[in-house]
Amino acid sequence: MEICEFLKGETVMKIRIGIMGYGNLGRGIECAIKQNKDMELVAVFTRRDPASVNILTEGVSVYHVDEAANMQDKIDVMILCGGSATDLPKQTKEYAKMFHVVDSFDTHANIPSHFEAVDAAAKESGKIGIISVGWDPGMFSLNRLYANAILPNGSDYTFWGKGVSQGHSDAIRRVEGVLDGKQYTIPVEAALEAVRTGNNPELTTRQKHIRECFVVAAEGADKAKIEAEIKNMPNYFADYDTIVNFITQEELDKNHSGIPHGGFVIRSGKTGWNEENKHIIEYSLKLDSNPEFTASVIVAYARAAYRMASEGQSGCKTVFDIAPAYLSSQTPEELRAHML
Amino acid sequence: MEICEFLKGETVMKIRIGIMGYGNLGRGIECAIKQNKDMELVAVFTRRDPASVNILTEGVSVYHVDEAANMQDKIDVMILCGGSATDLPKQTKEYAKMFHVVDSFDTHANIPSHFEAVDAAAKESGKIGIISVGWDPGMFSLNRLYANAILPNGSDYTFWGKGVSQGHSDAIRRVEGVLDGKQYTIPVEAALEAVRTGNNPELTTRQKHIRECFVVAAEGADKAKIEAEIKNMPNYFADYDTIVNFITQEELDKNHSGIPHGGFVIRSGKTGWNEENKHIIEYSLKLDSNPEFTASVIVAYARAAYRMASEGQSGCKTVFDIAPAYLSSQTPEELRAHML
Repeated sequence: MEICEFLKGETVMKIRIGIMGYGNLGRGIECAIKQNKDMELVAVFTRRDPASVNILTEGVSVYHVDEAANMQDKIDVMILCGGSATDLPKQTKEYAKMFHVVDSFDTHANIPSHFEAVDAAAKESGKIGIISVGWDPGMFSLNRLYANAILPNGSDYTFWGKGVSQGHSDAIRRVEGVLDGKQYTIPVEAALEAVRTGNNPELTTRQKHIRECFVVAAEGADKAKIEAEIKNMPNYFADYDTIVNFITQEELDKNHSGIPHGGFVIRSGKTGWNEENKHIIEYSLKLDSNPEFTASVIVAYARAAYRMASEGQSGCKTVFDIAPAYLSSQTPEELRAHML
Repeated sequence: MEICEFLKGETVMKIRIGIMGYGNLGRGIECAIKQNKDMELVAVFTRRDPASVNILTEGVSVYHVDEAANMQDKIDVMILCGGSATDLPKQTKEYAKMFHVVDSFDTHANIPSHFEAVDAAAKESGKIGIISVGWDPGMFSLNRLYANAILPNGSDYTFWGKGVSQGHSDAIRRVEGVLDGKQYTIPVEAALEAVRTGNNPELTTRQKHIRECFVVAAEGADKAKIEAEIKNMPNYFADYDTIVNFITQEELDKNHSGIPHGGFVIRSGKTGWNEENKHIIEYSLKLDSNPEFTASVIVAYARAAYRMASEGQSGCKTVFDIAPAYLSSQTPEELRAHML
């Protein structure tokens, strides 16, 4: 167990992190731990053959998921990097029996039931489970809450992008004759500007976002038919102005291999005895790598989980329940002196 | 004592607020309370003759400050609207003996000692004292903390404006031959754009902000001399590109009577095993009324003070120590269901 001496010369134990699942998010967690000197990566767990998984950190082993239960004395916080559809509804409550856990559960409609399940497990084990961490849900949620509490008389706007939507990219690839594709969600600049005037415009789905697709068609495929099928796809594209660009696989690989994302949370509100003054609160993210940024948020909340548990707290928490100071490696005194 | 029934049909007591000091900030607090249905204004306290102070809320009385000590059973949270130079260093710790208190103490260098004094008083009385609430310190501080915790490898940038600086306006008015004046702090657009590229530019004071002055000169005054004196004033203007406009008192009154402000907190950071991905987190405010927005933040934190105290907490807190959920009038369940 390593000793960490960065905090004002005090001897502090590093927070021992496990990563459950090694896809884009798991790899992002590994990179984020490298930037946080009060943490160390202890183990990565996978459902695949551990020998087939190569990680970046020297001296750290990859284990089969079944080994995790045997490592409860070696890991403080287990970060769950599975998907929200099937992995996390099972895993988070299960691993909350053994470790402090953090997940990025993002099926908004099911957050209340997920919370209840994790809360029951974590209260019984005396662990902390932080759910739905990342940027939306996560930092965007926080900004919605703060802005609503400050300006109760106002309107909320969330714009996403410019960024890659995995779900929409998958939808493109299911169209007959499509070999590969990527979809960017793009906020409409005119809509952003209208919101920033403070006039609280009502905006339709079509007015808020454009969807731009880059599509690799099979040889001889009917491109007009593909384009029409994409543009008319219900739920995914029909309610939007959609642009379809046909490109080669080489172009797609060269120019569209990144996973950028971002967006804007804006609240526009009025104050004054007669609502005479307008205010705009805007929070925005411009991210080269969606999974690495999400991972960076999660790792800060892993620190919070560890600290809240050290104070005797347990149960399920969300970003709403966690005082900001828990996220920082600095002491409360340092934060007040330098960041307030 | 009024009953408030807006929370899901439950019967909840309103939070009873007192306002200490009735200038721009105190009046802003009064307006903000009107927008928050779980609060009621109980009394306004002034050092002036109470009969000379007219407030907006019907049925609420103005008292001399000396009366406050007699109203400990009528007020839950006393909001202190005095200045940071001389009022708050005395008042906050004094009134924390009697009430939960919130202030907007903004002398950054003295925050640690102010914290200690308020903490000692509030711990002894079992009250909560929240200090340095507003937007800077306040929401800007919070955004610095969150962004630093998420992106430990990066650079911070704070820009102020476009907005009125009271201190710089006062400095203009002290110049010989000046009858009246107002100063706007304006962020340099090119500097903002450079920061948003993610290239972490190093920016001088002059590169970040412009100072624009609107000056009413006395009849026959030497305008060239006034302009030179303003532009060369150490600390206030000498390190900036300063624009001086001479206008009439009528123009000043007509076009420059507002108190707008705002600004930008930007963190630019890198992630990835080899720091290959850039990220920009940006928080900005565009405020028609600086004091009314500050007041709106304070009132949300007054709610937090009341709730934290209801759980048995006491002592001095800053925005860093307060979980976001405490600020909202919604329940934790509602927040998870609708805002996460």
